[in-house]
Amino acid sequence: MTTVAQAEKIVLAQLKDHGTETVPFEQALGRVLAEYLLADRDLPPFNRVTMDGIAISYKAIEAGISTFHIKATQAAGDEPMGIEDDDLCIEIMTGAALHPSLDTVIRYEDLEIRNRLAALTIHNIKKGQNVHFKGKDKHAGDVVAAANQKVTPAIISLAASVGKGGLLVKKLPRVVIISSGDELVDVNDTPTTYQIRRSNNYTIKAALTNHGLHADMLHIPDNPEVTKEQIANCLQNYDVILLSGGISMGKFDYIPKALEELQVNKLFHKVAQRPGKPFWFGRHDNGVLVFAFPGNPVATFMCLHRYFLLWLDATLGLPAKAPVYAVLDSDFSFQPQLQYFLQVKLNFNNRGQLMATPIEGNGSGDFANLADTDAFMELPLERNEFKKGDAYQVWIF
Amino acid sequence: MTTVAQAEKIVLAQLKDHGTETVPFEQALGRVLAEYLLADRDLPPFNRVTMDGIAISYKAIEAGISTFHIKATQAAGDEPMGIEDDDLCIEIMTGAALHPSLDTVIRYEDLEIRNRLAALTIHNIKKGQNVHFKGKDKHAGDVVAAANQKVTPAIISLAASVGKGGLLVKKLPRVVIISSGDELVDVNDTPTTYQIRRSNNYTIKAALTNHGLHADMLHIPDNPEVTKEQIANCLQNYDVILLSGGISMGKFDYIPKALEELQVNKLFHKVAQRPGKPFWFGRHDNGVLVFAFPGNPVATFMCLHRYFLLWLDATLGLPAKAPVYAVLDSDFSFQPQLQYFLQVKLNFNNRGQLMATPIEGNGSGDFANLADTDAFMELPLERNEFKKGDAYQVWIF
Repeated sequence: MTTVAQAEKIVLAQLKDHGTETVPFEQALGRVLAEYLLADRDLPPFNRVTMDGIAISYKAIEAGISTFHIKATQAAGDEPMGIEDDDLCIEIMTGAALHPSLDTVIRYEDLEIRNRLAALTIHNIKKGQNVHFKGKDKHAGDVVAAANQKVTPAIISLAASVGKGGLLVKKLPRVVIISSGDELVDVNDTPTTYQIRRSNNYTIKAALTNHGLHADMLHIPDNPEVTKEQIANCLQNYDVILLSGGISMGKFDYIPKALEELQVNKLFHKVAQRPGKPFWFGRHDNGVLVFAFPGNPVATFMCLHRYFLLWLDATLGLPAKAPVYAVLDSDFSFQPQLQYFLQVKLNFNNRGQLMATPIEGNGSGDFANLADTDAFMELPLERNEFKKGDAYQVWIF
Repeated sequence: MTTVAQAEKIVLAQLKDHGTETVPFEQALGRVLAEYLLADRDLPPFNRVTMDGIAISYKAIEAGISTFHIKATQAAGDEPMGIEDDDLCIEIMTGAALHPSLDTVIRYEDLEIRNRLAALTIHNIKKGQNVHFKGKDKHAGDVVAAANQKVTPAIISLAASVGKGGLLVKKLPRVVIISSGDELVDVNDTPTTYQIRRSNNYTIKAALTNHGLHADMLHIPDNPEVTKEQIANCLQNYDVILLSGGISMGKFDYIPKALEELQVNKLFHKVAQRPGKPFWFGRHDNGVLVFAFPGNPVATFMCLHRYFLLWLDATLGLPAKAPVYAVLDSDFSFQPQLQYFLQVKLNFNNRGQLMATPIEGNGSGDFANLADTDAFMELPLERNEFKKGDAYQVWIF
């Protein structure tokens, strides 16, 4: 059977360039940057005053001057005003640009001002104090943000600062979530005693929304012709098909047959893991990928995070995230020769350790339990006993 | 001067119930649940088959029967079919509801089927195997999700399962972000050599978007009448005003005067912290809160996370989040009697420890540096030396 490590490798071998597009910078939040942001001018672009007060030439301090005539007042956004004599000063506001004849700012708190005369009330003036000098952060042409990272609020800020009204970002793959089966009814319908409501498709959609990805949804009834027609249609219009359930040995699972007839090639079926053993992954000749997750909700959720979201980041050109490790806070054992994904609740202790408390539900169908947990802990395949204090990788959702 | 702890306490004393509203469950992701979700029927609602195969009565196994006549085939969503004799079985699919005459499922992999006769190929059959029994997860009327928590994909799934097409959630406060100052030009404009582009307002908006909160934006020019009129208008139409810059001793800061004239009462001004010392917080008699962040971008970003987002969670009724601690990975010292918020880059080591690497920029105006960090580490006020290996609270953004 395919191991988790092998399955990951096979999935990550299927990367594709989905192209780029330019979006208004404010709408680029969470998207993957496809260009380098460069400073259009120095940052700051001028010697920027950081305190309200007076601007002087430090030469005056060296010459022992401690009282200054206020020549003029300059607000932020005003054209810079200079001085001709060292005993002059400009009353100046935070954000203003310093004139070349000035280099030091003394804040109001350290002054006494009367009749347009400003007298220092402190002595230890430092040259250049309260000034954020031109180009101190970046020079014109410097990279302020590299490509191939997610656009964060800080990058939005940088884009605004350097005048990038539009940002080039990676196009997102077009994704459809397919549910199937006549046993599933809509949320607003009343199921019979032997039906249930569709929910997996909504869960997947919500998890993708949290990762900035829109997905369409489609429900296919248990009918072989309709199944084939709809899947054929999806293979033309999407980059990725996510299926939940419908890939099994069941007699009424028309999806495996349709996939086969439509030339979607199996890359693996069944992974040595729990939950999620029946996970199926395939690829159409035209490049469309099919992630067929097992029908049970927790298995679907695990596979979505462990495989699909990993693929999504990689296909968008993001560097692999560093793994997150957490410390098991109680002993746990698991005998089968399967890689076990333990549902855990995470919390930090005051020593900076991420602690994981196992919260076991009633098997992998129990979604009520999942709502009380934060992550799956991936326990090593080669062991059966896991001790309190051991640290293992976790997949936070 | 107000300490960070005092400022937090004053901010968190200003909680308000903003009411509730019902939204379609799919749109409730990230909102705060204002009702308890109850199971409308048992979960699972019937004895649910978890493997494709045959369903039998365990009595047959006890009687030594190992070959069964297939009476009929039942798909998921079909009405349950029963047996009259113990040597009969129903060929049955995952998701189907078990008839009361059946209690155990044997999967195809453990069978040989010929001429409608299914013969067991294994011996250790357990009563009830491969069945997820009615009510095992929850009973009808049980709480499946408590109020006052954020709606996650798992809760979306539960809502779908129990047929809640609409969810009652907390209304979000109406927030406006005000920027001011003639030195600030629009992103698409070309600044003069003494102007810069507006960016703080976009950063705040993006950070709020990441926390599921929409905010309007407003830019006020340096004009006392317009300033007063616009702020008066905001006091009528919003629950919270977020200001970045404009509260200082500067001569052209018309905002403090407008706030005073419009009866916004100062609750504190200046906090013993770096960055963010000039932070001002006030409240209008009608309950509108004004968070006036300092003008420099990093200080604004810190105050937004440290105070506003904390207030937001609390006012929506979310329980206080457990603090997150990280371990300093190098020595650091800071002398002033201010609470220092150190910019850090976080990563987990393979022992489950969250490690924090200080990444110091060129002072609090350097947003380019912030893009390379993950969090602010809040260093204790009462100390000046911080050693490698010490763990302190971090505020992740």
